[in-house]
Amino acid sequence: MNPGFGGNVASDPLYGYFAAVAGQDAQISADELQRCLTQSGISGSYQPFSLETCRLMISMLDRDMSGTMGFAEFKELWQSLNQWKTVFVSYDQDRSGTMESQELQQAIANFGYRLSPQALNIIMKRYSLNGRITFDEFLSCCIRLRILTDQFKRRDATQSGSASFQYDDFIQVTMSV
Amino acid sequence: MNPGFGGNVASDPLYGYFAAVAGQDAQISADELQRCLTQSGISGSYQPFSLETCRLMISMLDRDMSGTMGFAEFKELWQSLNQWKTVFVSYDQDRSGTMESQELQQAIANFGYRLSPQALNIIMKRYSLNGRITFDEFLSCCIRLRILTDQFKRRDATQSGSASFQYDDFIQVTMSV
Repeated sequence: MNPGFGGNVASDPLYGYFAAVAGQDAQISADELQRCLTQSGISGSYQPFSLETCRLMISMLDRDMSGTMGFAEFKELWQSLNQWKTVFVSYDQDRSGTMESQELQQAIANFGYRLSPQALNIIMKRYSLNGRITFDEFLSCCIRLRILTDQFKRRDATQSGSASFQYDDFIQVTMSV
Repeated sequence: MNPGFGGNVASDPLYGYFAAVAGQDAQISADELQRCLTQSGISGSYQPFSLETCRLMISMLDRDMSGTMGFAEFKELWQSLNQWKTVFVSYDQDRSGTMESQELQQAIANFGYRLSPQALNIIMKRYSLNGRITFDEFLSCCIRLRILTDQFKRRDATQSGSASFQYDDFIQVTMSV
Protein backbone atom coordinates (compact mmCIF):
# COMPACT_ATOMS: atom_id res chain seq x y z
CA MET A 1 0.00 0.00 0.00
CA ASN A 2 2.80 2.35 0.86
CA PRO A 3 5.92 0.96 -0.80
CA GLY A 4 8.00 3.98 0.21
CA PHE A 5 8.03 2.68 3.77
CA GLY A 6 10.41 -0.26 4.00
CA GLY A 7 9.36 -0.88 7.56
CA ASN A 8 5.65 -0.62 6.92
CA VAL A 9 4.90 -3.42 9.31
CA ALA A 10 1.33 -2.37 10.07
CA SER A 11 0.18 -3.65 6.68
CA ASP A 12 1.92 -7.01 7.24
CA PRO A 13 -0.74 -9.57 8.17
CA LEU A 14 1.71 -11.24 10.55
CA TYR A 15 2.07 -8.03 12.51
CA GLY A 16 -1.42 -8.42 13.93
CA TYR A 17 -0.52 -11.67 15.70
CA PHE A 18 2.70 -10.17 16.97
CA ALA A 19 1.27 -6.85 18.14
CA ALA A 20 -1.57 -8.57 19.98
CA VAL A 21 0.89 -10.06 22.48
CA ALA A 22 3.92 -7.70 22.35
CA GLY A 23 3.97 -4.94 24.96
CA GLN A 24 5.32 -1.44 24.53
CA ASP A 25 8.87 -2.75 24.15
CA ALA A 26 7.82 -4.58 20.94
CA GLN A 27 9.51 -7.75 22.20
CA ILE A 28 7.86 -11.05 23.07
CA SER A 29 8.90 -13.63 25.64
CA ALA A 30 8.47 -17.40 25.35
CA ASP A 31 4.99 -17.51 26.93
CA GLU A 32 3.85 -14.60 24.74
CA LEU A 33 5.22 -16.38 21.67
CA GLN A 34 3.29 -19.48 22.69
CA ARG A 35 0.04 -17.48 22.84
CA CYS A 36 0.87 -15.68 19.61
CA LEU A 37 1.54 -18.90 17.66
CA THR A 38 -1.55 -20.58 19.09
CA GLN A 39 -3.69 -17.64 18.00
CA SER A 40 -2.09 -17.58 14.55
CA GLY A 41 -3.28 -21.14 13.95
CA ILE A 42 0.06 -22.17 12.43
CA SER A 43 0.00 -25.50 14.22
CA GLY A 44 -3.27 -26.21 12.37
CA SER A 45 -4.90 -29.36 13.70
CA TYR A 46 -1.71 -30.22 15.62
CA GLN A 47 -1.38 -29.56 19.34
CA PRO A 48 -0.25 -26.06 20.32
CA PHE A 49 3.51 -25.64 20.80
CA SER A 50 4.93 -26.32 24.24
CA LEU A 51 6.58 -23.54 26.23
CA GLU A 52 9.81 -25.53 25.94
CA THR A 53 9.70 -25.40 22.14
CA CYS A 54 8.80 -21.71 22.16
CA ARG A 55 11.87 -21.05 24.30
CA LEU A 56 14.01 -22.84 21.74
CA MET A 57 12.48 -20.77 18.95
CA ILE A 58 13.54 -17.62 20.77
CA SER A 59 17.04 -18.98 21.47
CA MET A 60 17.49 -19.84 17.80
CA LEU A 61 17.22 -16.19 16.75
CA ASP A 62 18.21 -14.43 19.95
CA ARG A 63 21.40 -12.73 18.79
CA ASP A 64 21.47 -10.25 21.67
CA MET A 65 20.75 -13.00 24.24
CA SER A 66 17.85 -10.99 25.64
CA GLY A 67 15.53 -13.99 25.93
CA THR A 68 12.91 -12.14 23.88
CA MET A 69 12.04 -11.74 20.20
CA GLY A 70 11.34 -8.67 18.04
CA PHE A 71 9.13 -8.54 14.96
CA ALA A 72 11.99 -9.05 12.45
CA GLU A 73 12.95 -12.31 14.21
CA PHE A 74 9.31 -13.32 14.46
CA LYS A 75 8.98 -13.05 10.67
CA GLU A 76 12.15 -15.10 10.20
CA LEU A 77 10.80 -17.71 12.60
CA TRP A 78 7.48 -17.80 10.77
CA GLN A 79 9.25 -18.68 7.54
CA SER A 80 11.25 -21.50 9.15
CA LEU A 81 8.14 -22.85 10.89
CA ASN A 82 6.31 -23.05 7.59
CA GLN A 83 9.20 -24.91 5.97
CA TRP A 84 9.36 -27.40 8.83
CA LYS A 85 5.60 -27.80 8.78
CA THR A 86 5.69 -28.66 5.07
CA VAL A 87 8.26 -31.39 5.81
CA PHE A 88 6.27 -32.73 8.74
CA VAL A 89 2.96 -32.81 6.86
CA SER A 90 4.62 -34.75 4.04
CA TYR A 91 5.51 -37.49 6.54
CA ASP A 92 2.20 -37.37 8.39
CA GLN A 93 0.34 -39.08 5.53
CA ASP A 94 -2.37 -40.52 7.74
CA ARG A 95 -2.99 -37.13 9.44
CA SER A 96 -2.48 -38.71 12.86
CA GLY A 97 -0.56 -35.64 14.03
CA THR A 98 2.62 -37.70 14.32
CA MET A 99 5.39 -39.00 12.12
CA GLU A 100 7.26 -42.27 12.54
CA SER A 101 10.56 -42.04 14.36
CA GLN A 102 12.27 -43.82 11.43
CA GLU A 103 11.15 -40.98 9.16
CA LEU A 104 13.00 -38.50 11.36
CA GLN A 105 16.27 -40.08 10.16
CA GLN A 106 15.28 -39.34 6.60
CA ALA A 107 14.23 -35.76 7.39
CA ILE A 108 17.53 -35.08 9.17
CA ALA A 109 19.51 -36.44 6.21
CA ASN A 110 17.41 -34.33 3.82
CA PHE A 111 18.26 -31.21 5.86
CA GLY A 112 21.91 -31.98 5.05
CA TYR A 113 23.13 -33.23 8.43
CA ARG A 114 25.61 -36.09 8.24
CA LEU A 115 25.18 -38.15 11.40
CA SER A 116 26.17 -41.68 12.41
CA PRO A 117 23.51 -44.37 13.02
CA GLN A 118 24.30 -44.05 16.77
CA ALA A 119 23.60 -40.31 16.78
CA LEU A 120 20.39 -40.80 14.78
CA ASN A 121 19.33 -43.52 17.18
CA ILE A 122 19.86 -41.26 20.20
CA ILE A 123 17.86 -38.49 18.55
CA MET A 124 15.01 -40.81 17.61
CA LYS A 125 14.79 -42.15 21.16
CA ARG A 126 14.93 -38.69 22.64
CA TYR A 127 12.08 -37.28 20.54
CA SER A 128 9.69 -40.17 20.06
CA LEU A 129 7.13 -41.84 22.25
CA ASN A 130 6.13 -45.35 21.27
CA GLY A 131 7.84 -44.86 17.90
CA ARG A 132 5.91 -41.69 17.00
CA ILE A 133 6.96 -38.02 16.99
CA THR A 134 4.58 -35.08 17.36
CA PHE A 135 4.96 -31.82 15.42
CA ASP A 136 6.05 -30.03 18.59
CA GLU A 137 8.80 -32.60 19.28
CA PHE A 138 9.85 -32.56 15.63
CA LEU A 139 10.30 -28.79 15.78
CA SER A 140 12.16 -29.01 19.05
CA CYS A 141 14.53 -31.51 17.44
CA CYS A 142 15.06 -29.42 14.27
CA ILE A 143 15.73 -26.23 16.24
CA ARG A 144 18.17 -27.83 18.68
CA LEU A 145 20.04 -29.57 15.89
CA ARG A 146 20.38 -26.29 14.03
CA ILE A 147 21.55 -24.30 17.06
CA LEU A 148 24.02 -26.96 18.23
CA THR A 149 25.45 -27.47 14.75
CA ASP A 150 25.87 -23.69 14.28
CA GLN A 151 27.61 -23.37 17.65
CA PHE A 152 29.90 -26.29 16.86
CA LYS A 153 30.85 -24.85 13.47
CA ARG A 154 31.75 -21.52 15.05
CA ARG A 155 34.29 -23.33 17.21
CA ASP A 156 35.57 -25.42 14.29
CA ALA A 157 36.84 -22.56 12.15
CA THR A 158 39.01 -24.81 9.95
CA GLN A 159 36.14 -27.28 9.39
CA SER A 160 38.25 -30.13 10.72
CA GLY A 161 35.21 -31.88 12.19
CA SER A 162 36.58 -31.40 15.68
CA ALA A 163 36.07 -28.51 18.11
CA SER A 164 37.49 -27.63 21.49
CA PHE A 165 35.35 -26.20 24.29
CA GLN A 166 36.23 -24.65 27.64
CA TYR A 167 33.95 -26.07 30.35
CA ASP A 168 32.08 -22.81 30.94
CA ASP A 169 31.56 -22.25 27.22
CA PHE A 170 30.34 -25.84 26.81
CA ILE A 171 27.76 -25.32 29.55
CA GLN A 172 26.63 -22.01 28.03
CA VAL A 173 26.09 -23.62 24.62
CA THR A 174 24.43 -26.80 25.82
CA MET A 175 22.30 -25.46 28.67
CA SER A 176 20.77 -22.74 26.53
CA VAL A 177 18.97 -25.24 24.27
CA MET B 1 11.87 -60.07 56.49
CA ASN B 2 14.28 -62.33 54.70
CA PRO B 3 17.71 -60.80 55.16
CA GLY B 4 19.43 -63.74 53.48
CA PHE B 5 18.17 -62.44 50.14
CA GLY B 6 20.23 -59.44 49.11
CA GLY B 7 17.90 -58.85 46.20
CA ASN B 8 14.74 -59.13 48.23
CA VAL B 9 13.08 -56.33 46.33
CA ALA B 10 9.52 -57.42 47.05
CA SER B 11 9.80 -56.14 50.63
CA ASP B 12 11.10 -52.77 49.45
CA PRO B 13 8.25 -50.25 49.65
CA LEU B 14 9.52 -48.56 46.50
CA TYR B 15 9.13 -51.76 44.54
CA GLY B 16 5.35 -51.43 44.64
CA TYR B 17 5.42 -48.18 42.66
CA PHE B 18 7.88 -49.64 40.20
CA ALA B 19 6.17 -53.00 39.69
CA ALA B 20 2.80 -51.31 39.13
CA VAL B 21 4.04 -49.83 35.86
CA ALA B 22 6.90 -52.13 34.79
CA GLY B 23 5.97 -54.88 32.37
CA GLN B 24 7.43 -58.36 32.22
CA ASP B 25 10.82 -57.00 31.15
CA ALA B 26 11.10 -55.16 34.52
CA GLN B 27 12.11 -51.98 32.69
CA ILE B 28 10.20 -48.71 32.56
CA SER B 29 10.08 -46.12 29.79
CA ALA B 30 9.74 -42.34 30.24
CA ASP B 31 5.93 -42.31 30.17
CA GLU B 32 5.79 -45.21 32.63
CA LEU B 33 8.24 -43.41 34.90
CA GLN B 34 6.00 -40.35 34.75
CA ARG B 35 3.00 -42.41 35.90
CA CYS B 36 5.08 -44.17 38.52
CA LEU B 37 6.39 -40.95 40.06
CA THR B 38 2.97 -39.31 39.97
CA GLN B 39 1.49 -42.29 41.83
CA SER B 40 4.33 -42.30 44.37
CA GLY B 41 3.40 -38.76 45.38
CA ILE B 42 7.06 -37.65 45.45
CA SER B 43 6.22 -34.33 43.84
CA GLY B 44 3.94 -33.66 46.85
CA SER B 45 1.88 -30.55 46.30
CA TYR B 46 4.01 -29.67 43.26
CA GLN B 47 2.86 -30.33 39.72
CA PRO B 48 3.57 -33.82 38.35
CA PHE B 49 6.82 -34.19 36.41
CA SER B 50 6.75 -33.49 32.69
CA LEU B 51 7.54 -36.25 30.21
CA GLU B 52 10.58 -34.20 29.21
CA THR B 53 11.99 -34.32 32.73
CA CYS B 54 11.22 -38.04 33.06
CA ARG B 55 13.19 -38.64 29.88
CA LEU B 56 16.15 -36.80 31.37
CA MET B 57 15.87 -38.89 34.54
CA ILE B 58 16.19 -42.03 32.43
CA SER B 59 19.12 -40.62 30.42
CA MET B 60 20.96 -39.72 33.62
CA LEU B 61 21.19 -43.38 34.68
CA ASP B 62 20.86 -45.12 31.34
CA ARG B 63 24.29 -46.76 31.14
CA ASP B 64 23.24 -49.24 28.46
CA MET B 65 21.51 -46.51 26.38
CA SER B 66 18.33 -48.59 26.26
CA GLY B 67 16.02 -45.64 26.90
CA THR B 68 14.48 -47.53 29.82
CA MET B 69 15.15 -47.93 33.54
CA GLY B 70 15.44 -50.99 35.80
CA PHE B 71 14.62 -51.15 39.50
CA ALA B 72 18.22 -50.57 40.67
CA GLU B 73 18.36 -47.31 38.67
CA PHE B 74 14.89 -46.37 39.90
CA LYS B 75 16.10 -46.63 43.52
CA GLU B 76 19.16 -44.53 42.69
CA LEU B 77 16.92 -41.93 41.02
CA TRP B 78 14.60 -41.91 44.03
CA GLN B 79 17.50 -40.98 46.29
CA SER B 80 18.64 -38.13 44.03
CA LEU B 81 15.08 -36.84 43.67
CA ASN B 82 14.69 -36.66 47.43
CA GLN B 83 17.96 -34.75 47.77
CA TRP B 84 16.93 -32.27 45.10
CA LYS B 85 13.48 -31.93 46.64
CA THR B 86 15.03 -31.03 50.00
CA VAL B 87 17.05 -28.29 48.32
CA PHE B 88 14.03 -26.98 46.41
CA VAL B 89 11.74 -26.94 49.46
CA SER B 90 14.35 -24.98 51.40
CA TYR B 91 14.13 -22.23 48.76
CA ASP B 92 10.35 -22.40 48.37
CA GLN B 93 9.76 -20.70 51.74
CA ASP B 94 6.36 -19.34 50.79
CA ARG B 95 5.17 -22.72 49.47
CA SER B 96 4.27 -21.16 46.11
CA GLY B 97 5.64 -24.22 44.28
CA THR B 98 8.41 -22.10 42.76
CA MET B 99 11.80 -20.75 43.69
CA GLU B 100 13.29 -17.44 42.57
CA SER B 101 15.60 -17.63 39.60
CA GLN B 102 18.30 -15.82 41.62
CA GLU B 103 18.21 -18.68 44.12
CA LEU B 104 19.08 -21.13 41.35
CA GLN B 105 22.52 -19.51 41.16
CA GLN B 106 23.04 -20.23 44.84
CA ALA B 107 21.82 -23.82 44.51
CA ILE B 108 24.17 -24.47 41.56
CA ALA B 109 27.13 -23.05 43.50
CA ASN B 110 26.19 -25.20 46.51
CA PHE B 111 26.20 -28.30 44.30
CA GLY B 112 29.86 -27.48 43.60
CA TYR B 113 29.63 -26.23 40.00
CA ARG B 114 31.91 -23.30 39.22
CA LEU B 115 30.26 -21.27 36.49
CA SER B 116 30.68 -17.74 35.18
CA PRO B 117 27.98 -15.09 35.67
CA GLN B 118 27.20 -15.41 31.92
CA ALA B 119 26.61 -19.16 32.18
CA LEU B 120 24.46 -18.71 35.30
CA ASN B 121 22.50 -16.01 33.52
CA ILE B 122 21.82 -18.28 30.53
CA ILE B 123 20.68 -21.08 32.84
CA MET B 124 18.40 -18.79 34.83
CA LYS B 125 16.78 -17.45 31.67
CA ARG B 126 16.36 -20.93 30.24
CA TYR B 127 14.60 -22.39 33.28
CA SER B 128 12.57 -19.52 34.69
CA LEU B 129 9.32 -17.91 33.71
CA ASN B 130 8.74 -14.40 35.03
CA GLY B 131 11.64 -14.87 37.43
CA ARG B 132 10.27 -18.07 39.02
CA ILE B 133 11.31 -21.71 38.59
CA THR B 134 9.02 -24.69 39.18
CA PHE B 135 10.19 -27.94 40.80
CA ASP B 136 9.97 -29.73 37.45
CA GLU B 137 12.17 -27.11 35.74
CA PHE B 138 14.58 -27.13 38.67
CA LEU B 139 15.00 -30.89 38.35
CA SER B 140 15.41 -30.67 34.59
CA CYS B 141 18.18 -28.11 35.15
CA CYS B 142 19.96 -30.19 37.84
CA ILE B 143 19.85 -33.36 35.76
CA ARG B 144 21.09 -31.75 32.55
CA LEU B 145 23.88 -29.95 34.38
CA ARG B 146 24.98 -33.24 35.94
CA ILE B 147 24.88 -35.21 32.68
CA LEU B 148 26.64 -32.53 30.63
CA THR B 149 29.34 -31.97 33.27
CA ASP B 150 29.96 -35.75 33.52
CA GLN B 151 30.22 -36.05 29.75
CA PHE B 152 32.59 -33.09 29.56
CA LYS B 153 34.84 -34.50 32.30
CA ARG B 154 35.08 -37.84 30.49
CA ARG B 155 36.53 -36.00 27.51
CA ASP B 156 38.84 -33.88 29.68
CA ALA B 157 40.90 -36.71 31.15
CA THR B 158 43.70 -34.42 32.29
CA GLN B 159 41.27 -32.00 33.96
CA SER B 160 42.62 -29.13 31.90
CA GLY B 161 39.24 -27.41 31.77
CA SER B 162 39.11 -27.90 28.01
CA ALA B 163 37.72 -30.80 25.98
CA SER B 164 37.69 -31.67 22.32
CA PHE B 165 34.63 -33.12 20.58
CA GLN B 166 34.14 -34.67 17.17
CA TYR B 167 30.93 -33.29 15.59
CA ASP B 168 29.03 -36.58 15.76
CA ASP B 169 30.05 -37.13 19.39
CA PHE B 170 29.04 -33.56 20.25
CA ILE B 171 25.59 -34.13 18.77
CA GLN B 172 25.21 -37.45 20.59
CA VAL B 173 26.04 -35.85 23.94
CA THR B 174 24.00 -32.70 23.52
CA MET B 175 20.92 -34.06 21.73
CA SER B 176 20.42 -36.81 24.31
CA VAL B 177 19.64 -34.33 27.09
